[in-house]
Amino acid sequence: MDFKLKSYKKDFDYSYTFGAFPTMELINFKPEAVVKVLVSTNYDKKSSEDSIYNVCNGKNIEVEKNDKLFNKLSPKENCYVIGVFKKFKSHINKSKSHVVLVDPSNMGNVGTIIRTMIGFGINNLAVIGHGADLFNPKVVRASMGAIFKLNFTHYDCFEDYIKENSEHDIYPFMLKGAVTLDSLEIKKDKSFSIVFGNEAAGLSDNFLEYGTSVLIPHQKTIDSLNLTIAAGIAIYEFSLKSK
Amino acid sequence: MDFKLKSYKKDFDYSYTFGAFPTMELINFKPEAVVKVLVSTNYDKKSSEDSIYNVCNGKNIEVEKNDKLFNKLSPKENCYVIGVFKKFKSHINKSKSHVVLVDPSNMGNVGTIIRTMIGFGINNLAVIGHGADLFNPKVVRASMGAIFKLNFTHYDCFEDYIKENSEHDIYPFMLKGAVTLDSLEIKKDKSFSIVFGNEAAGLSDNFLEYGTSVLIPHQKTIDSLNLTIAAGIAIYEFSLKSK
Repeated sequence: MDFKLKSYKKDFDYSYTFGAFPTMELINFKPEAVVKVLVSTNYDKKSSEDSIYNVCNGKNIEVEKNDKLFNKLSPKENCYVIGVFKKFKSHINKSKSHVVLVDPSNMGNVGTIIRTMIGFGINNLAVIGHGADLFNPKVVRASMGAIFKLNFTHYDCFEDYIKENSEHDIYPFMLKGAVTLDSLEIKKDKSFSIVFGNEAAGLSDNFLEYGTSVLIPHQKTIDSLNLTIAAGIAIYEFSLKSK
Repeated sequence: MDFKLKSYKKDFDYSYTFGAFPTMELINFKPEAVVKVLVSTNYDKKSSEDSIYNVCNGKNIEVEKNDKLFNKLSPKENCYVIGVFKKFKSHINKSKSHVVLVDPSNMGNVGTIIRTMIGFGINNLAVIGHGADLFNPKVVRASMGAIFKLNFTHYDCFEDYIKENSEHDIYPFMLKGAVTLDSLEIKKDKSFSIVFGNEAAGLSDNFLEYGTSVLIPHQKTIDSLNLTIAAGIAIYEFSLKSK
């Protein structure tokens, strides 16, 4: 694979991991996707055993030290390692429980939700709509590389998702939810889908028709919970309820 | 108050709310702190009743339309309203439950945690160390103005906090926590303090000596939970457990 690396765009067939930790996750969990690893001259080689050099040598992965290229690609924050990887195909496992995100707009939030999902053992994500690009480096970085352990599928619309996953119990999270999260009981022998709307608008009222809509009650003193917080609480609670 | 408004710095005695929603919260909950409100010519006046103009007129707050100043102060994102406010004194209520953040470093995270606290009725925040500036516009914005409903105090060190709040039951959240969050039972008649470390380092081992250390168990597939997610889950659970 030989090409000129540029600042990320959605239509590229490759993307980047910024930072040593997500790059290590890439190498360990998707080694077949790695194109090469870039390091800046500021990268501290002293870390010995676990250093990117040793790991890449062991797996025949090219490491390039190129400060000019590095500075062109790297975000402003402290970042001394960049992984370059080919985008890969993924598909959710229909027999497992899912998180469903409808038209998410903030890629950092998507990455944080992925990190939380993997942390609580829900490893399958459906994304409704094509606005969100899961390979966006902001997703990869906020996920801390958890994206490389995730199964995911994009669907054009929620109806398409439902058709393919008709055995799932559906739980849309909404301010108008019919049941509060703390009083909700779920069937432990069935896979579930917990569904969240967009950061600004939430889920539209027609989601009240699907499954059991759920409310996380909060004080009237705030307009709504932050999406990642609501999703984090829901993912944690569902991981406990399904045990 | 007549001065030349500049990009925010920590040593200023004033700060900003970026966006209409947090500015409205400022006006409604800390009207005495408002200096003036700036709008860009892009601000849509059609919103009528609830428009910033009407609200400010009703409270004798000056509204200035000044695109040059606006563009100098405003962040890149869509933002058409800026509130200018004098910093105000605040102090936690010792008879209530608290969140304690030890050396938080990401101001957006602090704002998100404040929004979550207010949402679940825990309205008192202690910040250990002086690195975090709660008046930073990033805190104000991520809190969606919830900062104006919060009581808060800075302490030099955790020992100072404990001395002043010795009646509280202390729950440090740590990867080495002695009790898991789901099995934890708390005394409903006592105020609690839930304590979180810094984004990168967490709490140091000496926090194991305080009260009951708590663990939110997660899969080994991630290194740790995101700080705001861990705090969000803990705040939600403690608000339920203390009912």
